[in-house]
Amino acid sequence: MVYLTRKAEFSAAHFYYVEAWSEAENLRVFGKCANRNGHGHNYTLEVTVKGEPDPVTGFVVDLKKLKDIMEEQVVRIYDHRHLNHEVPEFAHAVPTTENIAAAIWKRLEGKVPGAELHCVRVYEMADLSASYYGEAA
Amino acid sequence: MVYLTRKAEFSAAHFYYVEAWSEAENLRVFGKCANRNGHGHNYTLEVTVKGEPDPVTGFVVDLKKLKDIMEEQVVRIYDHRHLNHEVPEFAHAVPTTENIAAAIWKRLEGKVPGAELHCVRVYEMADLSASYYGEAA
Amino acid sequence: MVYLTRKAEFSAAHFYYVEAWSEAENLRVFGKCANRNGHGHNYTLEVTVKGEPDPVTGFVVDLKKLKDIMEEQVVRIYDHRHLNHEVPEFAHAVPTTENIAAAIWKRLEGKVPGAELHCVRVYEMADLSASYYGEAA
Amino acid sequence: MVYLTRKAEFSAAHFYYVEAWSEAENLRVFGKCANRNGHGHNYTLEVTVKGEPDPVTGFVVDLKKLKDIMEEQVVRIYDHRHLNHEVPEFAHAVPTTENIAAAIWKRLEGKVPGAELHCVRVYEMADLSASYYGEAA
Amino acid sequence: MVYLTRKAEFSAAHFYYVEAWSEAENLRVFGKCANRNGHGHNYTLEVTVKGEPDPVTGFVVDLKKLKDIMEEQVVRIYDHRHLNHEVPEFAHAVPTTENIAAAIWKRLEGKVPGAELHCVRVYEMADLSASYYGEAA
Amino acid sequence: MVYLTRKAEFSAAHFYYVEAWSEAENLRVFGKCANRNGHGHNYTLEVTVKGEPDPVTGFVVDLKKLKDIMEEQVVRIYDHRHLNHEVPEFAHAVPTTENIAAAIWKRLEGKVPGAELHCVRVYEMADLSASYYGEAA
Repeated sequence: MVYLTRKAEFSAAHFYYVEAWSEAENLRVFGKCANRNGHGHNYTLEVTVKGEPDPVTGFVVDLKKLKDIMEEQVVRIYDHRHLNHEVPEFAHAVPTTENIAAAIWKRLEGKVPGAELHCVRVYEMADLSASYYGEAA
Repeated sequence: MVYLTRKAEFSAAHFYYVEAWSEAENLRVFGKCANRNGHGHNYTLEVTVKGEPDPVTGFVVDLKKLKDIMEEQVVRIYDHRHLNHEVPEFAHAVPTTENIAAAIWKRLEGKVPGAELHCVRVYEMADLSASYYGEAA
Repeated sequence: MVYLTRKAEFSAAHFYYVEAWSEAENLRVFGKCANRNGHGHNYTLEVTVKGEPDPVTGFVVDLKKLKDIMEEQVVRIYDHRHLNHEVPEFAHAVPTTENIAAAIWKRLEGKVPGAELHCVRVYEMADLSASYYGEAA
Repeated sequence: MVYLTRKAEFSAAHFYYVEAWSEAENLRVFGKCANRNGHGHNYTLEVTVKGEPDPVTGFVVDLKKLKDIMEEQVVRIYDHRHLNHEVPEFAHAVPTTENIAAAIWKRLEGKVPGAELHCVRVYEMADLSASYYGEAA
Repeated sequence: MVYLTRKAEFSAAHFYYVEAWSEAENLRVFGKCANRNGHGHNYTLEVTVKGEPDPVTGFVVDLKKLKDIMEEQVVRIYDHRHLNHEVPEFAHAVPTTENIAAAIWKRLEGKVPGAELHCVRVYEMADLSASYYGEAA
Repeated sequence: MVYLTRKAEFSAAHFYYVEAWSEAENLRVFGKCANRNGHGHNYTLEVTVKGEPDPVTGFVVDLKKLKDIMEEQVVRIYDHRHLNHEVPEFAHAVPTTENIAAAIWKRLEGKVPGAELHCVRVYEMADLSASYYGEAA
């Protein structure tokens, strides 16, 4: 079993805000992230799949296919977007790094042919990341 | 003469749009950056000052003061903000990396005691930066 | 279950020396690290906690609280210090990267409200790190 | 139990090609990697071992010995080499990142005294890595 | 005047060898780089152009055009290639980092509309780079 | 003319203290850097030389020689040392990043055969560096 990790990047705007709360409560919990004009990040996405390398090609997964899937299922939808306003899963959920990692897992699960999705890690900045290993983990 | 460079970071949202142009023209020139919901970046700011090191302290500039000036004049104003909507210099100018570098120069010029401002470099992403050395350069 | 990782940095001096050994033995085992004047590093600390994201905030842990805990329990005590002379846990234990990781675990264990401490990773340099997952791991 | 990770680098040429396939089939599967003149990479190797830190030295493993073993068993053989033409394990196996990680595991297994080999991770580029944890994993 | 820098990457094989010299002389001067099977690197290319930002767009140069020019003039030709065997400028010149930087300058000079080429910097590895500012510099 | 830059690293301890000042004055100016036990850093040294590439070898400077000179003149003396106590130039001068850069220039000047020393840059941390171009600059 070999684990293969591929990175991609996307740049997006977001903010943290709970509609059911007062402005003051949002500020208390989320601080400057509660600014509803939004701010933004260069996100780094690391997708890890696992499997047996094919005895002929030496590939756990076709790298170009994996790249295309990440592009098609995630980057195309998240990149240069405002996550709160334009990405459906954040219409009613706060786009924290934790929630983004879990949402990307849902977008990728079952889409990588011949290999098992193992981990989705998202870096909001170099000093903050969230990793999700699926429901069962 | 020694050149001292200090980095800081800020996360902000922005978009590229010229009000005088049609939507189609904006899309043609700016592509996905023209999305007026905004997207965002982790910007890295590098400020370089030059001067003779003080013979006693060995400092070209008091590092804590330089950090405080960068924080007060730039980071406090740009960080976790939407540049187009909340930073005055981009109310009518496109917040390109080039314009951000020149704008930060204007904010810092004459503010660093005992040293000369030499360069303001801004990275929008690791693969794109703009450097400004002042009007006279 | 989502894993959240936050980084912090501290700069410290240290040396490797076993008092019960001769100078020659210390040199043989620790090489240039045995120099008792000390040398130093920019350490990077990565703390990983795990938990269910709060259904309302989307947080596994309040990021500001986690940052404050890391600052209060570790960085305030280790940063700009000589580990051998000023940090109690290294009065009689060699401050190797392995021992630093385990010592930081002990400092953080039970201090992060609402989430479980999963891993403490310490980089002494970019090419050397130690990870500790607790006694039970 | 503490996990210790050490990095090393090597620069090598390689290409992807299955002799049993036609040129067209190789191009279809491997794209520009099928160019038999070879291209190359700066590979980063991360070796993780695990063990109890020695109560006296604080070491899971003697760092200098680990470095020497990685140098002797891997870097000396892979660095500044053409993997397909000069490294025996790739005479008949495609030197994918997956296969390189597993091959380096075989070279290092049982060679690190006093600690257990836990993981071999190989980065071909910053955005692509493979990790191998041994047969049993 | 603002300086804009854009990065690109390419992976290539190369070796250092002077045909007019003996094998022993090549080994003495070039060491392990003289291995004619070739080894390889992930090269990083940084292209800096300078100009006045357009008062309307805020661009020194259209970023997409600059990217396309770098792709068309350099990356397409160097990436996944063996520099000695497949890139004409190195048929009779050693592909040192210095020579690669100067060769890329020649490929880019006069090709960037509306801005002046200022610097071509090439990193062979993170710890080795060469910068070329043109004949006149 | 081509500029060639080579990096090296050294890990050292230091502190900032002016003997002629009171403890209180040192604390006021240098803050936590005034702790005379010392703290430390992983310093990165970037040495840039300039010259015409040799028409046969393509080298501005023999890379191995440059590496050996940096090792012999700087790294061997600074690495795993306490700069204040063990490096002569800091017996009576504060080892600020500025002073370290100028001191390394003096150690390297005239030592690189066939090329001109252009710049010595020293990073104390990723976010702080000093560059020195010699007296004449």
